[in-house]
Amino acid sequence: MSSIHQLPLELIDSCIGSRIWVVMKSDKEFTGTLKHFDDYVNMVLEDVTEYENTPEGRKTTQLEQILLNGNNICMLIPGGTGPSA
Amino acid sequence: MSSIHQLPLELIDSCIGSRIWVVMKSDKEFTGTLKHFDDYVNMVLEDVTEYENTPEGRKTTQLEQILLNGNNICMLIPGGTGPSA
Amino acid sequence: MSSIHQLPLELIDSCIGSRIWVVMKSDKEFTGTLKHFDDYVNMVLEDVTEYENTPEGRKTTQLEQILLNGNNICMLIPGGTGPSA
Amino acid sequence: MSSIHQLPLELIDSCIGSRIWVVMKSDKEFTGTLKHFDDYVNMVLEDVTEYENTPEGRKTTQLEQILLNGNNICMLIPGGTGPSA
Amino acid sequence: MSSIHQLPLELIDSCIGSRIWVVMKSDKEFTGTLKHFDDYVNMVLEDVTEYENTPEGRKTTQLEQILLNGNNICMLIPGGTGPSA
Amino acid sequence: MSSIHQLPLELIDSCIGSRIWVVMKSDKEFTGTLKHFDDYVNMVLEDVTEYENTPEGRKTTQLEQILLNGNNICMLIPGGTGPSA
Amino acid sequence: MSSIHQLPLELIDSCIGSRIWVVMKSDKEFTGTLKHFDDYVNMVLEDVTEYENTPEGRKTTQLEQILLNGNNICMLIPGGTGPSA
Repeated sequence: MSSIHQLPLELIDSCIGSRIWVVMKSDKEFTGTLKHFDDYVNMVLEDVTEYENTPEGRKTTQLEQILLNGNNICMLIPGGTGPSA
Repeated sequence: MSSIHQLPLELIDSCIGSRIWVVMKSDKEFTGTLKHFDDYVNMVLEDVTEYENTPEGRKTTQLEQILLNGNNICMLIPGGTGPSA
Repeated sequence: MSSIHQLPLELIDSCIGSRIWVVMKSDKEFTGTLKHFDDYVNMVLEDVTEYENTPEGRKTTQLEQILLNGNNICMLIPGGTGPSA
Repeated sequence: MSSIHQLPLELIDSCIGSRIWVVMKSDKEFTGTLKHFDDYVNMVLEDVTEYENTPEGRKTTQLEQILLNGNNICMLIPGGTGPSA
Repeated sequence: MSSIHQLPLELIDSCIGSRIWVVMKSDKEFTGTLKHFDDYVNMVLEDVTEYENTPEGRKTTQLEQILLNGNNICMLIPGGTGPSA
Repeated sequence: MSSIHQLPLELIDSCIGSRIWVVMKSDKEFTGTLKHFDDYVNMVLEDVTEYENTPEGRKTTQLEQILLNGNNICMLIPGGTGPSA
Repeated sequence: MSSIHQLPLELIDSCIGSRIWVVMKSDKEFTGTLKHFDDYVNMVLEDVTEYENTPEGRKTTQLEQILLNGNNICMLIPGGTGPSA
């Protein structure tokens, strides 16, 4: 890999074990601890909060462990604490 | 596979024979016992409950065995018991 | 193919000659006898019933033989008898 | 090609020179005589009738010869006579 | 290329220098003289009429030369004269 | 490259340094001077006018230099002067 | 790389360490300092402002560091200062 292109995957790699905020293409959002990921940015998160916009306002759900499909991810925010109230 | 990238497929593999909650991109959700999967995360589930949001509210359907198209899956929750009532 | 990943295609293969219920991404549904399929899960069905949701309610059409485009399939249910009335 | 997977392309091949009904992902439908096709199921049809749902009801157009983009096809019905009136 | 699969690209090739009617996936339509194309069916048309459905009815625009993105094309009609008024 | 398929990329190449009108799949349009492009038709334009349809009518924005994602481009019009007022 | 095709990635490379304005396909926009990118134009931005169109008007959010999924990017504007108020 030439010096011109530094792999953002190395940024994700530096987040292993830390909290991360994930925004999906479908506007669903998650915060959680990043445990694993692969080259397609499929990610395993633990101690997860799911944020969902519903007609009744924002709904949050607590989940122990999830696997997210990388091709549905729009943006990652290392250390992110999730959408403001 | 370098230590940097642990394959989330190994998480899925650890779920074989256990209950799993699957959320599709189309907002359909399933819980079932994971029997098989392949590298494209096409999955075979058994003793399945399908959850569907309809204008009349949430509809559930019991199915013996299904094969899900991996490229339509948004999220997997190992041991997940499905959407709250 | 390592023991970790069993190919769901083998499940489909076991359905050749039997009835199968196919749910498309576009919410169209089919039941029919599975005659052939390929690695992209393009499928040939015979003695087919097509189920379509129209403003006037569910419409069913009988078709002798059809070829379905695999990349438009969401879910397969071996032995499935189609959507309840 | 192992006996497990029979190529549906062989079904299409058997339709060369015969009438076929094609349903697109966009709900447009065509009937015509199948002249050629390739591995991506791009198809050349002749003596074609195009069926289109418009606010004023179903519109049909006669076309001598067309080439259809395979990745936009949802379903093929060999010998199909098109949507009922 | 086995005799079973005749390449529709050969049909397109036979249209070089002739008029052709192109229907896009987005319902935009074009007629023009086909000058060049490549294996992805990206096409160069000259003496072009663009047909667009707008709230105020059909709008036509004359363009000298255009390059169309192949993956956005739904259908080609050799010698086609465009949508009826 | 056989004589049958002339690469439209050669048309784009002939536009380097000239004005070009770009229509995106999202209906956004641009005119500008073409500086660079690659095999995926990612393009660098300079002295750019962006045309956007908003509820309040057409909005134009002047931009010095932009890089456009090729897979979002629908059509290129060499020498094009942009949408009529 | 032949002289015909100059890689726009070289333009992006020249922006490393500078401010850049990114417009996504979903109409979300960002300005930030470009730190890294890869061949898929996945990008790491720092000192980021996110611009979002909401029913209540434009909402801006400050973020320390983000990773953007390249296949969701529509346009890059080197040195861009973001959408006018």
